[in-house]
Amino acid sequence: MTSVLVLNGPNLNLLGTRQPEIYGHTTLADVEDMCAAHAETHGFAVTCLQSNHEGAMVDAIHAARGPNDGIVLNADANTQTTNALHAAIVGTQLPVVELHLSNIHARETFRHKSYIAPVAVGMICGFGATGYILALDALLGHLGRTT
Amino acid sequence: MTSVLVLNGPNLNLLGTRQPEIYGHTTLADVEDMCAAHAETHGFAVTCLQSNHEGAMVDAIHAARGPNDGIVLNADANTQTTNALHAAIVGTQLPVVELHLSNIHARETFRHKSYIAPVAVGMICGFGATGYILALDALLGHLGRTT
Amino acid sequence: MTSVLVLNGPNLNLLGTRQPEIYGHTTLADVEDMCAAHAETHGFAVTCLQSNHEGAMVDAIHAARGPNDGIVLNADANTQTTNALHAAIVGTQLPVVELHLSNIHARETFRHKSYIAPVAVGMICGFGATGYILALDALLGHLGRTT
Amino acid sequence: MTSVLVLNGPNLNLLGTRQPEIYGHTTLADVEDMCAAHAETHGFAVTCLQSNHEGAMVDAIHAARGPNDGIVLNADANTQTTNALHAAIVGTQLPVVELHLSNIHARETFRHKSYIAPVAVGMICGFGATGYILALDALLGHLGRTT
Amino acid sequence: MTSVLVLNGPNLNLLGTRQPEIYGHTTLADVEDMCAAHAETHGFAVTCLQSNHEGAMVDAIHAARGPNDGIVLNADANTQTTNALHAAIVGTQLPVVELHLSNIHARETFRHKSYIAPVAVGMICGFGATGYILALDALLGHLGRTT
Amino acid sequence: MTSVLVLNGPNLNLLGTRQPEIYGHTTLADVEDMCAAHAETHGFAVTCLQSNHEGAMVDAIHAARGPNDGIVLNADANTQTTNALHAAIVGTQLPVVELHLSNIHARETFRHKSYIAPVAVGMICGFGATGYILALDALLGHLGRTT
Amino acid sequence: MTSVLVLNGPNLNLLGTRQPEIYGHTTLADVEDMCAAHAETHGFAVTCLQSNHEGAMVDAIHAARGPNDGIVLNADANTQTTNALHAAIVGTQLPVVELHLSNIHARETFRHKSYIAPVAVGMICGFGATGYILALDALLGHLGRTT
Amino acid sequence: MTSVLVLNGPNLNLLGTRQPEIYGHTTLADVEDMCAAHAETHGFAVTCLQSNHEGAMVDAIHAARGPNDGIVLNADANTQTTNALHAAIVGTQLPVVELHLSNIHARETFRHKSYIAPVAVGMICGFGATGYILALDALLGHLGRTT
Amino acid sequence: MTSVLVLNGPNLNLLGTRQPEIYGHTTLADVEDMCAAHAETHGFAVTCLQSNHEGAMVDAIHAARGPNDGIVLNADANTQTTNALHAAIVGTQLPVVELHLSNIHARETFRHKSYIAPVAVGMICGFGATGYILALDALLGHLGRTT
Amino acid sequence: MTSVLVLNGPNLNLLGTRQPEIYGHTTLADVEDMCAAHAETHGFAVTCLQSNHEGAMVDAIHAARGPNDGIVLNADANTQTTNALHAAIVGTQLPVVELHLSNIHARETFRHKSYIAPVAVGMICGFGATGYILALDALLGHLGRTT
Amino acid sequence: MTSVLVLNGPNLNLLGTRQPEIYGHTTLADVEDMCAAHAETHGFAVTCLQSNHEGAMVDAIHAARGPNDGIVLNADANTQTTNALHAAIVGTQLPVVELHLSNIHARETFRHKSYIAPVAVGMICGFGATGYILALDALLGHLGRTT
Amino acid sequence: MTSVLVLNGPNLNLLGTRQPEIYGHTTLADVEDMCAAHAETHGFAVTCLQSNHEGAMVDAIHAARGPNDGIVLNADANTQTTNALHAAIVGTQLPVVELHLSNIHARETFRHKSYIAPVAVGMICGFGATGYILALDALLGHLGRTT
Repeated sequence: MTSVLVLNGPNLNLLGTRQPEIYGHTTLADVEDMCAAHAETHGFAVTCLQSNHEGAMVDAIHAARGPNDGIVLNADANTQTTNALHAAIVGTQLPVVELHLSNIHARETFRHKSYIAPVAVGMICGFGATGYILALDALLGHLGRTT
Repeated sequence: MTSVLVLNGPNLNLLGTRQPEIYGHTTLADVEDMCAAHAETHGFAVTCLQSNHEGAMVDAIHAARGPNDGIVLNADANTQTTNALHAAIVGTQLPVVELHLSNIHARETFRHKSYIAPVAVGMICGFGATGYILALDALLGHLGRTT
Repeated sequence: MTSVLVLNGPNLNLLGTRQPEIYGHTTLADVEDMCAAHAETHGFAVTCLQSNHEGAMVDAIHAARGPNDGIVLNADANTQTTNALHAAIVGTQLPVVELHLSNIHARETFRHKSYIAPVAVGMICGFGATGYILALDALLGHLGRTT
Repeated sequence: MTSVLVLNGPNLNLLGTRQPEIYGHTTLADVEDMCAAHAETHGFAVTCLQSNHEGAMVDAIHAARGPNDGIVLNADANTQTTNALHAAIVGTQLPVVELHLSNIHARETFRHKSYIAPVAVGMICGFGATGYILALDALLGHLGRTT
Repeated sequence: MTSVLVLNGPNLNLLGTRQPEIYGHTTLADVEDMCAAHAETHGFAVTCLQSNHEGAMVDAIHAARGPNDGIVLNADANTQTTNALHAAIVGTQLPVVELHLSNIHARETFRHKSYIAPVAVGMICGFGATGYILALDALLGHLGRTT
Repeated sequence: MTSVLVLNGPNLNLLGTRQPEIYGHTTLADVEDMCAAHAETHGFAVTCLQSNHEGAMVDAIHAARGPNDGIVLNADANTQTTNALHAAIVGTQLPVVELHLSNIHARETFRHKSYIAPVAVGMICGFGATGYILALDALLGHLGRTT
Repeated sequence: MTSVLVLNGPNLNLLGTRQPEIYGHTTLADVEDMCAAHAETHGFAVTCLQSNHEGAMVDAIHAARGPNDGIVLNADANTQTTNALHAAIVGTQLPVVELHLSNIHARETFRHKSYIAPVAVGMICGFGATGYILALDALLGHLGRTT
Repeated sequence: MTSVLVLNGPNLNLLGTRQPEIYGHTTLADVEDMCAAHAETHGFAVTCLQSNHEGAMVDAIHAARGPNDGIVLNADANTQTTNALHAAIVGTQLPVVELHLSNIHARETFRHKSYIAPVAVGMICGFGATGYILALDALLGHLGRTT
Repeated sequence: MTSVLVLNGPNLNLLGTRQPEIYGHTTLADVEDMCAAHAETHGFAVTCLQSNHEGAMVDAIHAARGPNDGIVLNADANTQTTNALHAAIVGTQLPVVELHLSNIHARETFRHKSYIAPVAVGMICGFGATGYILALDALLGHLGRTT
Repeated sequence: MTSVLVLNGPNLNLLGTRQPEIYGHTTLADVEDMCAAHAETHGFAVTCLQSNHEGAMVDAIHAARGPNDGIVLNADANTQTTNALHAAIVGTQLPVVELHLSNIHARETFRHKSYIAPVAVGMICGFGATGYILALDALLGHLGRTT
Repeated sequence: MTSVLVLNGPNLNLLGTRQPEIYGHTTLADVEDMCAAHAETHGFAVTCLQSNHEGAMVDAIHAARGPNDGIVLNADANTQTTNALHAAIVGTQLPVVELHLSNIHARETFRHKSYIAPVAVGMICGFGATGYILALDALLGHLGRTT
Repeated sequence: MTSVLVLNGPNLNLLGTRQPEIYGHTTLADVEDMCAAHAETHGFAVTCLQSNHEGAMVDAIHAARGPNDGIVLNADANTQTTNALHAAIVGTQLPVVELHLSNIHARETFRHKSYIAPVAVGMICGFGATGYILALDALLGHLGRTT
């Protein structure tokens, strides 16, 4: 069965209480439940993981090689100012869909830069928690599976 | 019934024959058929329009106020070097989902700039023709409708 | 009789409904009526033209050579990202007063750039619809006529 | 009665003899007479002041709070390289019309920058001494008075 | 027979009267006659087209696929500030020789940038109307034909 | 009782032996003792924490929500090149006083940039170990308590 | 007895009425009273001076050599766009604590630049009128006196 | 006996399988064996350590003070976008030879920047796994030992 | 008889063996023979010279004043990073046609800069060895001679 | 008799005690005596003036029109960050020799910029107090007088 | 037998007396002797050449094709501001190891740029005269020979 | 006897005929005669040398160590785009006075950059041929000799 890692970066454990006017009221647990439900409905597996530690995210991407077929990655603050995830993605050659809850291009300039984008399949941003479902669909489509 | 304008910009009439290694083999007619089928299945309406003339695209956005509830916009070359569409979107206040077939952030630097992004709901890029379906779903979600 | 072309660019047909907090509630028809009334009072002629098509604006500037003595030009989105109007002005050598409804220097940086400014007689910005009257007066003054 | 301060910055005391090919042959006294005449004709008051000392200009803006309803400000060389006037305008909250004799956007790049513009109502430039009359009209219009 | 499209962009209809100190006194009709005469002498065909509308130029490039073997393109103001022609050239894969009447590298900086150059076979600039003949020769040479 | 987290970032465990000509001879233990003594004298509580791991600092800021009323943050090398702390501060909405031992604006340019500054209450730098006492006082003042 | 000059730059005479949402409601007289009271309590002397004239501020710094042991300097608009104060500080070698009422790093980019910072002992910003007390304490600490 | 820490940063555990066309087929274990063999042959000791966690690398550099005489550091993705290692090196004053497998100056621009370079003894790049041996030799030479 | 100097810069002696996929298989001797043949056919003279020494190229330009009427200059690597040739051209006032074998605007950014362009009559690039014939024709045209 | 104004800007009253390692031990009085002696020896007149007030310097330049034939101007800190002197020089059309005691090009980057240079006859820097004599000689030479 | 050209650029003939605190006391003759001794010990040949003339260095690289298998190149001042050596290396396709005595990344910014790096096998810098031995070893390793 | 090398760079052999509106009508021979006469009058020696070859200029600076006490250097085009002379000056530690005939700060931006300035004693520019006499005086002054 196709298996997807949904990997969330620093501060996303605060979802729901963190700047709800930007990021919405859905919590991380809600997001992970939504992903699990979507996976069950469409017959694929998801593993969810969140960490505030960049090193742990690199480890998780390495560990995904084998058990997972692709990654939905919301790297949050690790998108713009560090390239260790970039190298991890290139190193494992796993397909990655880059995801952001807010429309990063409509916010401060420092959010427009992404070290992940050049090695991702594509990017989805601006649709809040719904973005996770769109990203899963996009990744499955890329893997040649239809939802 | 919810109605969506799918608006394609310059050179997208060449889809299928234009750099297929980047943009794929699906033609514009195929894309428009896909969108129509998706709309029919999910109970909403789509109007499709393509133009190589920026002025005609501005006119189309103005005309969408009323008949359409939102726009899926692939502005292609009009994304980066002109801000008339930006002003048209702000002027009409219609929700717009920005779409690109290729992952513009993984290509030349001049493609990273978007005058549309700051006034769009969100952006989807890198998933080829499948992106149109994702963009329709994202727009409907934004309009409070579920597909 | 002195004759002036009042040329308005893309999205100015939306005047009155477009971001009224910035651009005011006066419509394009109101503006054109104001200009006509001012012209009648002061004994000169005005022709008014608006287009969302840059090419049509270039054509209009060319066509003004002969019938018109000068141009009041609100190029809106065609001010910052295209230089075809610049070349049209230089090519026809008609005196042009650049006009903007809002104070473009007090808004986003991308609005500070103007391709028209270096070939205009001068610029007036920030005074809303009143700016058209000021621009007509400024142009007549430049032409050696007093209002 | 509405009262306007016409405030001129450094080197404008040289008007008439300073680069007449750019700034014209009208002297500062002429300009101040023109403003006084225009005020008398239209029933408002003007006070004129010129200084080569930035500090004195800041003092003048402070002092205008109360006696004056707005300012026509030609800051000349103090436009581009100092922000004390910017802060004085914000601090007093008086409406200011920024004025330049020459079209600063058609000259050297260092003249395009203005610290005053972001806090001015609007800007008028390129119309020589006539600009003072246009600026007075623009300010009165902003104050809700018609000339 | 080899067939070449000579495509001229905005404001080139003014040739001969527009800044003759830079662009010379030859009119567009003269240029098109020169090209036709050169084509007849050397046994190939030319089609000439000029438009002030970028969209019409994109359409013309698309339409050239089939009837024409290559394009001599003087895009004028559409060279520097828009990339729709770039995409049209890449999309049709027609060989294009970029042409400018004046030496764009010896003029203002904003003229040094070209969106067409990266997808053109080569560039010729600075030789006035003679440049069209050089460009035709260069294109024929590129197509493996000798003049 | 008001409670403050004093959070120190990477390499501050080396205080006292690390570049004493810049950072002084006071050790981290000395600093923490000074803070504790100051807190005791003025009737508030401090918790001190240092980590070389950015992820651990993010965790600490999250954990401070509840037990602590504000943070004195010397993020050292994590000030300039990472924005995870920025997002953690915004996410928890805790008031943060940014602290640097040296005057970062008098050193290399790369030290002038701070991702923390835009979301901090204020910044204190250049006063060595004394800065911690000033920062505690500043934070208490901000919390409406006088020392 | 240790003596400190508290030197305030342009527009700070407006304190209390100038943008109170940013600068607070405390007036300059209040600030000077607070400083005097703090000095009396802790056994040192303060002289307070405010000017809108940069030249007068340079004179004041020169005059401080001898009577004063150090300076608390809020240069306001003279911080970012002029370097005469920089040279005055270097020339007199008096220790200077740079002070700003607002957090300049959290506001517009042009406020991040400081010509004073590289020659100041340190900087304090963002704590409103309280900052004067913190700055006096910081300066006394630097002079080897404890408050 | 002279002792060297060979410290490898994020993603170097993937050596041999990660982009072998750039980084070669030698695994991290091979590299560590090569270093150990070289050390044994030339009579010095090596300790090898790899981590994907920047914090752990900072800890390792701190811990090297005492047991090790110098460091061969391949920081990989932590070279360009973080300055915590820079501060750790300065803080411990251990001599560091910066190493990169690929010629970073012949690749993307973002790889040309190094926060480590300004505080390293020197840099070696472009020689693949052989670089470790060259770096050990260079470090020993710097320590006054000949190999 | 009209006489032209064909001056080739550093590394052009390698033509034919140097990156033939970019510069073609024609040798420098072939190029010089082509030029001589073209000159003979059209009744003008050519002198050919190549040097890897910039100083020798400056000397050659100086020496051309008198014997030659103009120069076809392929300065290669001396185009972008040195301005001695620029000054030599200005100093001698000889008309120069700048030539490049490859389309320098379609290659790396550092090749887009030309110190020669601002003082050349015009530029031809991208047409390989054929460019020399086009450049000779262009120069003769500029000199008022027709080929 | 030829008459020269030697005009010194802010902080130059500190000469001799201000950073003597850069500016030397000569005082302003010494410099003015040197200039007077040189003038007497060579038969011309000098007036010396120093001010910390930019406005006073502008006034002095205006006042020099008539009594003086040229100016030796050491504007010090008013060289780099203000353009009022630039405009005063252009406005009076007096020949100005720009002078700096230190070699400003060998110091911090912000000292390399000069608003005065583009309107000065020439610049002399790096020769300490001797520079005044060189500048007087240079100015007299420019005025067609030999010393 | 493998043969290496050791090519030294401008000012390296001054080695030993030139800034010995940066470049050491070893003379060029010493360096060449060290290289010769190393070559003899390890069974390969070296040719040494130094020139202050860039053109002579280009000639030397061309001449190395055939007699030499690779080059150790210390281009010194010709590294940063000229690209003729870049083109010579690409033109001859000889493997080049770039060498610098000092750690160029720890010095002024203008030394960080290298035109040679993008076409070199790798770079070694910061190890003084020892760097030549490391570079020879690195080049031999690249050529598949072990020392 | 004090001895000075007057070293002139590329294209200065054209003095007198090269752009006389900028560089004047004095020839290089005239300049060298002026220098010789000035030397004889004031009892010091000059050697004059001009070359279009940068390498020859480096050689000349090296050779000046010993026979000459300092250098007056007009490097012309070698000032801005090459740093070999910079390194030669540092390497020999000879005092150098940088000289330019025209006011380089009043011309194109690319002339404002000087690689020589940071290692020169000072700079003189804008005074035409007279500059050589001023430069000799300045250098003698620096050497502690009075003219």
